[in-house]
Amino acid sequence: MDALINRQWRLARRPVGLVKESDFEWREEPAPTPGPGQILVRNEFLSVDPANRTWMWQDNTALPAQPLGSVVRGITFGTVAQSHNSALPEGVRVLGILGWQDYAVTDGALDAVLRIPDDWDVPPTMQLGLLGHVGITAYFGLLEIGKPRAGETLVVSSAAGAVGSLVGQIGKLYGCRVVGIAGTAEKCRWLREDLGFDAVINHKAEPVFKRLKEHCPRGIDVYFDNVGGSMLEDALNLLNEHARVVACGMLSVYNNVGGMLALPAGPNNLLNLTLKRAKMEGFVCLDFWPRAAEATDMLARWHREGKLRYQVNVVDGLRHAPRALNRLFDSSNRGKLIVKMS
Amino acid sequence: MDALINRQWRLARRPVGLVKESDFEWREEPAPTPGPGQILVRNEFLSVDPANRTWMWQDNTALPAQPLGSVVRGITFGTVAQSHNSALPEGVRVLGILGWQDYAVTDGALDAVLRIPDDWDVPPTMQLGLLGHVGITAYFGLLEIGKPRAGETLVVSSAAGAVGSLVGQIGKLYGCRVVGIAGTAEKCRWLREDLGFDAVINHKAEPVFKRLKEHCPRGIDVYFDNVGGSMLEDALNLLNEHARVVACGMLSVYNNVGGMLALPAGPNNLLNLTLKRAKMEGFVCLDFWPRAAEATDMLARWHREGKLRYQVNVVDGLRHAPRALNRLFDSSNRGKLIVKMS
Repeated sequence: MDALINRQWRLARRPVGLVKESDFEWREEPAPTPGPGQILVRNEFLSVDPANRTWMWQDNTALPAQPLGSVVRGITFGTVAQSHNSALPEGVRVLGILGWQDYAVTDGALDAVLRIPDDWDVPPTMQLGLLGHVGITAYFGLLEIGKPRAGETLVVSSAAGAVGSLVGQIGKLYGCRVVGIAGTAEKCRWLREDLGFDAVINHKAEPVFKRLKEHCPRGIDVYFDNVGGSMLEDALNLLNEHARVVACGMLSVYNNVGGMLALPAGPNNLLNLTLKRAKMEGFVCLDFWPRAAEATDMLARWHREGKLRYQVNVVDGLRHAPRALNRLFDSSNRGKLIVKMS
Repeated sequence: MDALINRQWRLARRPVGLVKESDFEWREEPAPTPGPGQILVRNEFLSVDPANRTWMWQDNTALPAQPLGSVVRGITFGTVAQSHNSALPEGVRVLGILGWQDYAVTDGALDAVLRIPDDWDVPPTMQLGLLGHVGITAYFGLLEIGKPRAGETLVVSSAAGAVGSLVGQIGKLYGCRVVGIAGTAEKCRWLREDLGFDAVINHKAEPVFKRLKEHCPRGIDVYFDNVGGSMLEDALNLLNEHARVVACGMLSVYNNVGGMLALPAGPNNLLNLTLKRAKMEGFVCLDFWPRAAEATDMLARWHREGKLRYQVNVVDGLRHAPRALNRLFDSSNRGKLIVKMS
């Protein structure tokens, strides 16, 4: 096994704005060797997530800041290549946070490696995300924080993204009127025609507030916010009484914050939370990890039954990971963005 | 009874910034006569509340907008002077939203007149607020929205105001470390020495964020926000995981919003709600009206037992109501601001 080469992207500096290849260092070194109780995982797919960008900040309060020089943090799908751990024998498939590299050693427990059941009959690219962090985020974020009820109006920003596209579909399954906001005409068509959204707004081509008002004639009960910025302000202006704003993330600031650039100001109308007795609540999918099976069982079933589509967008080659990350911020990605390692 | 003169302030125009006397019209006209089922209330005290300013806006989503030309909306304490309603006989004391005037006719039910129990043994100025909207706001806002637990850190802005001073004291009764933010050295002394706050920040003289960091060494669990603006941003930067921001009000914007002036931008760090799995939730005390007795019973008991102080600041004369209102925004008021009608 000494011929195994471990290709890696390491964090060379804290990026400012969109990442550049020069923010990272490409390395090729021998794969590590698992010790007692440990396993060696061969990563096959890398999940590219908006949170990746925040993990590169100097100060990061959701997970410990990633030190300069370390392998870039990333969520992975792989197979156990060597095992000294009977709970994770060779050949089993695992999800983990094993980074932008071909191989990683872990003891399974500490790094929260999630073993994928052998009988999950979807391809690996489907498992990565739908039956992991993305699905858990969409499922619990919408149902536990947003608490949608049939007949209510749900608005989702970044609606054609991995999380947003699931949130909208789950909202439909729960009987909501679902309005999505996305950044291209093609995505809008996809959301409406293929995923069953009731209405869609192309924020690059249409006046968002005006359209939201038209598409939400009874106001907004749940706003699932992936973006922040002006869309959040627009949504806050249309909240119904006792509305819930799910603070899932803020794509609009991920390339700006972290102490590097001036922080953009926030919405000018938070007082609406008071006037409408509404709430804005944040969450991190890790909070729901102990209940993961609730989400993945339902998501897998809905997917099997054809009620839920999970679109995957695969970029070939670990080399392209930095460039792939930027695609989450320029409207060029649809669905779940994945890098195939080889 | 035809000699009764009803002095009134009517809303002449939508104020811009702090109110001016010329925004109102002073009128003296005969008092109205109660019809069948109605009562005539002689207002004795007028509650001056920050919300009064918002009620003058063109668009107001908590209560219907107040039409130009109408008597200024305000919460009142008075006595039934004439009654054609057996539930509210002559002589009983009532809280109501009967406006900036000496006399008002109401049927009791529609205008949500609250009959004050005859055995409440505190003076009228104590009843107005402590055992009405102010107490209900502080009690339920803190306990139901903020949900403080013993040992947690509670921060209150506008801490020397009617609501803030109660919130801090209730927080102490619940075992919290309580840090208040107020606008004069004298208020800070009062909060610390007389009301038992653990620490106080004079936002006019001290760097708020720096002091908050010092006074909240274990972070902030509950931020009871009466102000918005930069204090909210400062507090958001110190939130603990699962912290609660109680969106009670926003003194910092009440003179600016309403479509008249440019809206000030909001906090730049709402993403902290996500990273800290925290929530910001609004409420209006009317939401808790059906449970009012829970609050007023406890508040009256604490007050009787000397555990809760309720400071009243009385301005003499309905004539001075407009000027009194501005005192809520220039740091010159402490405790509950009340106008004595005569």
